[in-house]
Amino acid sequence: MENQNFDKYFAERHSYRTFDEKPVSREVISDIIRLAMRAPTTGNMQLYSVLVCDQEEMLMKLRPLHFNQPASKNAKAIITVCADFNRFARWCRLSNADPGYENFLSFTSAMLDATILAQQITTIAEMKGLGTCYLGTATYNADKISELLGLPEMVVPVACLAIGWPAGEAEETERLPLEAVCTFGRYPEFSDDDILRLYEAKDKFPANSKYVEENGKQSLAQVFTDVRYPKAMNEEFSAKFLQLLKEKKFL
Amino acid sequence: MENQNFDKYFAERHSYRTFDEKPVSREVISDIIRLAMRAPTTGNMQLYSVLVCDQEEMLMKLRPLHFNQPASKNAKAIITVCADFNRFARWCRLSNADPGYENFLSFTSAMLDATILAQQITTIAEMKGLGTCYLGTATYNADKISELLGLPEMVVPVACLAIGWPAGEAEETERLPLEAVCTFGRYPEFSDDDILRLYEAKDKFPANSKYVEENGKQSLAQVFTDVRYPKAMNEEFSAKFLQLLKEKKFL
Repeated sequence: MENQNFDKYFAERHSYRTFDEKPVSREVISDIIRLAMRAPTTGNMQLYSVLVCDQEEMLMKLRPLHFNQPASKNAKAIITVCADFNRFARWCRLSNADPGYENFLSFTSAMLDATILAQQITTIAEMKGLGTCYLGTATYNADKISELLGLPEMVVPVACLAIGWPAGEAEETERLPLEAVCTFGRYPEFSDDDILRLYEAKDKFPANSKYVEENGKQSLAQVFTDVRYPKAMNEEFSAKFLQLLKEKKFL
Repeated sequence: MENQNFDKYFAERHSYRTFDEKPVSREVISDIIRLAMRAPTTGNMQLYSVLVCDQEEMLMKLRPLHFNQPASKNAKAIITVCADFNRFARWCRLSNADPGYENFLSFTSAMLDATILAQQITTIAEMKGLGTCYLGTATYNADKISELLGLPEMVVPVACLAIGWPAGEAEETERLPLEAVCTFGRYPEFSDDDILRLYEAKDKFPANSKYVEENGKQSLAQVFTDVRYPKAMNEEFSAKFLQLLKEKKFL
């Protein structure tokens, strides 16, 4: 493989929230998922299921569960990747084996498998020229998504992807410097000054400054804590998601 | 990008558990992680940290926490990817913002970010010719790994990767057919016969049959339920992981 080509892709990739009118064929989506299924999985158990929603009738019901965020409204398909121990447990019972997977560790293994698969789908789709965007709301309204998609016990949505052929420009986004994230050895002991220095480029990034102004806040961090991911909302959806894990037998 | 090249990579990739003596330089690892950090992340919060263990003294302490499994013993480096809301919350406090992230939803967002990053690291490393293998034991002994790596509150290991230049042949592994995993629409209603048919190739795969025989079991499923992932073990590590999430303020 030519290194430069894929290095360039990884260095320059970004998510898309606006998509072309051109549909994404089921053949294209199937090809991507078939390739993605070679991704690593816990003990080769493949603890995931993928539900692709590409029909307007169903999309109309699914979008509000993602708060009608632009990527969900523009997407030609919404791909819901679920942590799934149901299929594996059924196979166990049919094979004279007694599955012991109604517990939290099994959920984390299945969530790991599902997320690895979702990211593999993302990379393959983007390399084929498609645009994608994770809908972080998968776990927020997981109970209602679960109902809409008819998910049985031991199946929980963990990652949703909006997908389509990209239209318009992708938004520029910044990232932290490597040293903020990666350490050789034990967890780093950053001073307060270190933290502020590591986040300086993020604080000064033009699109972020605009964001602070638009929201009438004093700092970028306040946009996160007061507007985008406030405590009360996080606690409400935490309780709902834990309740769903109980109902689906993972807790 | 030339489609055929990367399609071939995705279609043929597999994990490696044996590695060459040649070390993996910190420059190579840093380059991979820097590229991987362009992967999608929840609200661009980058809720992860990466701790790379490449010194023999530390590796000697880390391997037993992964039950000395071959990939951990052979690896030139073990990369622990953590769900991390600590750094972000510190930045919030230093920016006159009140973080509300001591809850389970915040853990799932951070676990999603960390796993997406781990898979991006995997893909980039493999495309550069390295061999990788997830160590599923990251969440089993998460408490002890946490202690060894000095993880503070709101930081929990979720994915570990053994890495090195591959040696020997990779093991052949089978995958389920696409229809077992992917549906256009709602969750599929499989009959018992469907399940057995979908798992038939797995049941008959030569390496799996050998596995059943070696373990003195009647079916492949029994190898999973009785030997590899038994109920008592899953329940023990579930309790420990939930306890760690409490200690780290995510529950």
